[in-house]
Amino acid sequence: MTPPRRHDDFAAPPPPAAETPCYPFAARARDLKRSEIREFLRHAGRPGMISLAGGLPAAELFDRDGLAAATAMVLRERPAAALQYGMTEGQPRLREALSALLRERGIAAADDGLLVTTGSQQAIDLLARIFIEPGDTVVVERPCYLAAVQAFALAGARLLTLPTDADGACVDRLDDCLGGPPPKFVYLVSTFANPTGATLAHERRLALLRWAVRHRVFVVEDDPYGELRFAGSAVPPLLALAAEVPGAADWCGYLSSLSKTVAPGLRVGWMQLPPAVAEQAGRVKQTLDLHTSSLAQEVAAAYLASGRLPAALVRARARYRDQAEALAAALRCRFGERLQFAMPEGGMFLWARFADGTDTSALLPAALAQSVLYVPGAAFYADAPERATLRLSYAGTPPELADEAAARLARALAAG
Amino acid sequence: MTPPRRHDDFAAPPPPAAETPCYPFAARARDLKRSEIREFLRHAGRPGMISLAGGLPAAELFDRDGLAAATAMVLRERPAAALQYGMTEGQPRLREALSALLRERGIAAADDGLLVTTGSQQAIDLLARIFIEPGDTVVVERPCYLAAVQAFALAGARLLTLPTDADGACVDRLDDCLGGPPPKFVYLVSTFANPTGATLAHERRLALLRWAVRHRVFVVEDDPYGELRFAGSAVPPLLALAAEVPGAADWCGYLSSLSKTVAPGLRVGWMQLPPAVAEQAGRVKQTLDLHTSSLAQEVAAAYLASGRLPAALVRARARYRDQAEALAAALRCRFGERLQFAMPEGGMFLWARFADGTDTSALLPAALAQSVLYVPGAAFYADAPERATLRLSYAGTPPELADEAAARLARALAAG
Repeated sequence: MTPPRRHDDFAAPPPPAAETPCYPFAARARDLKRSEIREFLRHAGRPGMISLAGGLPAAELFDRDGLAAATAMVLRERPAAALQYGMTEGQPRLREALSALLRERGIAAADDGLLVTTGSQQAIDLLARIFIEPGDTVVVERPCYLAAVQAFALAGARLLTLPTDADGACVDRLDDCLGGPPPKFVYLVSTFANPTGATLAHERRLALLRWAVRHRVFVVEDDPYGELRFAGSAVPPLLALAAEVPGAADWCGYLSSLSKTVAPGLRVGWMQLPPAVAEQAGRVKQTLDLHTSSLAQEVAAAYLASGRLPAALVRARARYRDQAEALAAALRCRFGERLQFAMPEGGMFLWARFADGTDTSALLPAALAQSVLYVPGAAFYADAPERATLRLSYAGTPPELADEAAARLARALAAG
Repeated sequence: MTPPRRHDDFAAPPPPAAETPCYPFAARARDLKRSEIREFLRHAGRPGMISLAGGLPAAELFDRDGLAAATAMVLRERPAAALQYGMTEGQPRLREALSALLRERGIAAADDGLLVTTGSQQAIDLLARIFIEPGDTVVVERPCYLAAVQAFALAGARLLTLPTDADGACVDRLDDCLGGPPPKFVYLVSTFANPTGATLAHERRLALLRWAVRHRVFVVEDDPYGELRFAGSAVPPLLALAAEVPGAADWCGYLSSLSKTVAPGLRVGWMQLPPAVAEQAGRVKQTLDLHTSSLAQEVAAAYLASGRLPAALVRARARYRDQAEALAAALRCRFGERLQFAMPEGGMFLWARFADGTDTSALLPAALAQSVLYVPGAAFYADAPERATLRLSYAGTPPELADEAAARLARALAAG
């Protein structure tokens, strides 16, 4: 069996044998970027490997009892709802539960703007498909979530990049993206970004909304990690702040997911959009997969209704805080000033940079030899990569392994 | 709340209010065809309505006990597999179970050609995305499954249509599709087609394979209904017959789904493709939704492993046979020679034609007034619709309602 490909793991099967016919694939599908690091990352599951590379939540945090109870209840009491075809927009009970989650986040939005998606990856693809014509531009952060870049490229977008710093995207540079035809949208992970972990500052959020209204450019806020804050103070989502900026609600979409808070295996995400955008997205979603798994949606709805999520999030935040602190302390101890990073306030990622300019892509084979894995920062740049950066996920690494991980990384650096 | 949109139910939300901003949607998304019958079919759930319009399997046939047991087992014994991120290609246990199903259908195919999809609708969209460049041609049957037409149109394909008769697609007319650049693929529902219920004859299957090899054109066989045969003799899938035609296995893909045999709410479908095509499709699928719900996949795998499917299929075939016979008898009794149709041998649809040329789209309001619904045949034509045709699904209508359904249809015709 060909080694399987896993989310956030770039292992590719071997190239087809020489006698394979030459199939007439579409150019953009054929050119869908393969990462040069796939061959390394397929080793993430190797015995003894400490992987800081994945974007997987810690499996120990899944509320197995709560989900088993929710599932049993659904199949006992609502089997037809869980097993039959459903509405493209999502199961009514889940839609209500997600609206309630949005209200807790400060977003009081119209029901006809909500669309359940097959994970928020599908939400990203849907927005690409409803907005992008080949050659259109889209604004992304620099660096940016890789799978969003892939979806936009597959739709034929040219990417314009916005620099980022410790306060997230430098929105004062947005006007630089206005030289040609207006971008179709701005996409950003606003809170605990992937890969940088940075959070867009409150004042920048307001500035971004004012810019969006002024230039009539749609803004897509992707927020899978916002509930995982373990330090600092919460910043409201753009769509919550839109109430303060006249017209902004028309130019603002919000994406979220249960993958990092409940369980990624459900593949349940959702979008809150202006109703006309949601209607267009729903029409296209029907063509993509008719609807998201009714079983997964009903289980998610029952779980959210059970009231167990808040306690599960308390546990997740505590664990990720402990793991982030342990990894940060180990890195400081082993590397000192040679490795620069900001302490994350939430989410799953620590973004670092070697002060001496070490090329982290070139370092990866040495790391692999030491049985430690990370993602070289170059994987997250749509243009001109900063090669001394790397993304370290603490989500799957218990505190007691942090020092060993840092030690292996140090040995790789010494050997590299 | 806006009335929700349901699979195979064309109800659309009301148009956006006048003050909605003009969003810069991509032309193909914006133009995604809306059916003119949506406004009628949103009434399918009205109290007292007998709907012959849907494509939904009978909910009473779902093996609730078997699925509840499978689900409980999965969450008890394999919670991490069901809740964590998984491989894009699908969960290993499900892949093994689906390979076993394929072998029962006469297909012994390479493991690296199998890709689990979020229903077979996603398989259709994936093939559209890997093959079609705007302006490319695709060959479909006339009439054809509507949501496939939509997916191909969304990808920018021009559709060439192949006439059909009682033996399925008239493959001797395929050369008519060779005037311009070669079509990217031929798509057909080979067994109990939607909407016609026809099955492609054995000899035509071989001719199609020989044509595909000769012209190096890919053939996509969509087979959601093949297991639901209740009369006549089985015809092997194209991919099973490919062993008899040198080179054909390279030009043949097979799509299937658990939606009509286990439960559509799982959203579990799959494709068996030549490995190079599967690799390309897997790369694109990762960008669409990372992977199909692990929970739904593990439940499906456990259910298939339980050995309960064969008995469930026996029940389904018996029920659909009874319902098809009851509806056919009622139609013959009420309409005689005025309504022409072939008795289906399986699947869910009876395809009929008014001998007097009655326009079934124009008849629909009168049918609605009589509380009976069907899908006017015009919905299934990519070009020049035959307006006297209609699709009647017997899947959801118990035998004791068949005569009342036919009587209402007759009253609608008398009033129309």
